[in-house]
Amino acid sequence: MTTANPPRAVVLLSGGLDSTTCLAIARDRGFETYALSVAYGQRHAAELAAARRVAAAFGAREHRLAHVELGLFGGSALTDPAIAVPEDREGDDIPVTYVPARNTVMLSMALAWAEVLGASDIFIGVNAVDYSGYPDCRPEYIAAFETMARLATKAGVEGRPLAIHTPLIALSKAEIIRLGVELGVDYGLTVSCYQADDAGRACGHCDACRLRRAGFEAAGVIDPTPYR
Amino acid sequence: MTTANPPRAVVLLSGGLDSTTCLAIARDRGFETYALSVAYGQRHAAELAAARRVAAAFGAREHRLAHVELGLFGGSALTDPAIAVPEDREGDDIPVTYVPARNTVMLSMALAWAEVLGASDIFIGVNAVDYSGYPDCRPEYIAAFETMARLATKAGVEGRPLAIHTPLIALSKAEIIRLGVELGVDYGLTVSCYQADDAGRACGHCDACRLRRAGFEAAGVIDPTPYR
Repeated sequence: MTTANPPRAVVLLSGGLDSTTCLAIARDRGFETYALSVAYGQRHAAELAAARRVAAAFGAREHRLAHVELGLFGGSALTDPAIAVPEDREGDDIPVTYVPARNTVMLSMALAWAEVLGASDIFIGVNAVDYSGYPDCRPEYIAAFETMARLATKAGVEGRPLAIHTPLIALSKAEIIRLGVELGVDYGLTVSCYQADDAGRACGHCDACRLRRAGFEAAGVIDPTPYR
Repeated sequence: MTTANPPRAVVLLSGGLDSTTCLAIARDRGFETYALSVAYGQRHAAELAAARRVAAAFGAREHRLAHVELGLFGGSALTDPAIAVPEDREGDDIPVTYVPARNTVMLSMALAWAEVLGASDIFIGVNAVDYSGYPDCRPEYIAAFETMARLATKAGVEGRPLAIHTPLIALSKAEIIRLGVELGVDYGLTVSCYQADDAGRACGHCDACRLRRAGFEAAGVIDPTPYR
C-alpha cells in the first residue's frame, strides 16, 4: 500500500493573527506547509519570534526567514524610523504604515520558493474587510498577481496550475478569530502590534492593536494579547 | 522662468550588456534615472562592480544595491553552488541558470522604490529574442506584471499611470549593441558572464558569453570583453 504525498503549500507567516490563522487553514485543508517569514526592515523582532513559535506549534515542515531590504527605500512608518507610527488614526486614507509593494515583494519570494519546491499553492492572510486602506490587500490585486505568477514560472510554462489562496480575504476580524479558535489556534502566541516590545507586548493604540482588540470583542473571545 | 523637473525612472541595472543599454535608453528618453541593482546570491561580485561603474558613467541620480536572499531557496546554478553552470548547452529547455522568480522579485523591488520616489516608470532590459528560455522575459509576462503593479500601489489607487518599459524586448543582441554604441555605451565597462572572475574577466563558454560574443560578431562591432 502506498500513501500519496500531501500537496505542498508555501504560507506567508508574519507571526500575527491573520497569517497564523492562514497557516492553520492551510494545514486543515491537507497541505504540507512551508512557512516563509519575510523580514523587510520592521521595527520589531517580536513578530518574527512569534512566527517561529507559530510555525513550530502548527507543524510546518520548514520555516524560513528571508531578509529583504525594503527599508532601503524608506517611505513607511514601519521601516523608516523618521516616520512616527500614528495612534488612534481617523479617516480612510492610505496610512503611513503602508509599506510600498510589501505584499508584492513577499508573494514574489513565496513564488520563488514554491517553484523550487514544486508547490502549486501559496497562502497569504490578506484581508479586504479590515484592510486598513492598503491597496495590495484587495481581491483584484491578488487575482492580477496570480495571473502574472502563472506567466512568470517554469510551472506556468509547462501548464501546471498555480494558485494564490486568500482564505481570510472576505472575513471580518471576528470571523477570522472564531475560525482560528475552531482550528486550535492559540492567539497568545501571535503578535499583531506595529510597535510591540521585545517581549512581544502590544501598545494597544496603533491601527493593528485597535483592529485586533475590536475583533476579540466582536467574536466574544477573551483577548489573550499581552498589553504593556 | 521655471524649468520642469525631468520625470524619474527606476532602472534595473545588473551591470551586464542589456541592462546597461537599457539605462542609456532611459537617459536618452529624458528620464532622471535611479539605478537599482539586486544582489540575489549570484556567484560573482564582478557584475555588481560593473553596475557601479556603469551607474557612475551614465549619470544615474542614485544607485542602490538591495540584497535579496533568493539563494535561500536554491534551485539555480546561479545561486546554488551545488549546481554546475553548463557550458556549450544544446536544446530549448529552460536552463539550470534560470533563477526562480528572479525578474518578479527584481521588478517588485523596483516597484517599491518607484512608489517612494513618486516615479511612474520602471525600465528592465529583458529580451525575448535571445532570452535563453526564461519564462519571465516574455512580453505577456511583462504585461501581466504591469497590470498587477497598477493594482498594487497607492499610485494605482489614485489613478496615476505606471509603466514597465522593456525597450530591448524585441531586439536581437546585435541590434542592442548597435543601439548602445549609438548612445555612447562603453561595453568594456559591462560584465555578462555567469562565472566572471573577480577582475571581471569572462569565461567565454557559458550561455551568456556565447550570446554576447555572437552579438558583437553579428553587429560588426569589436568585442571589448576581457576574456581570461
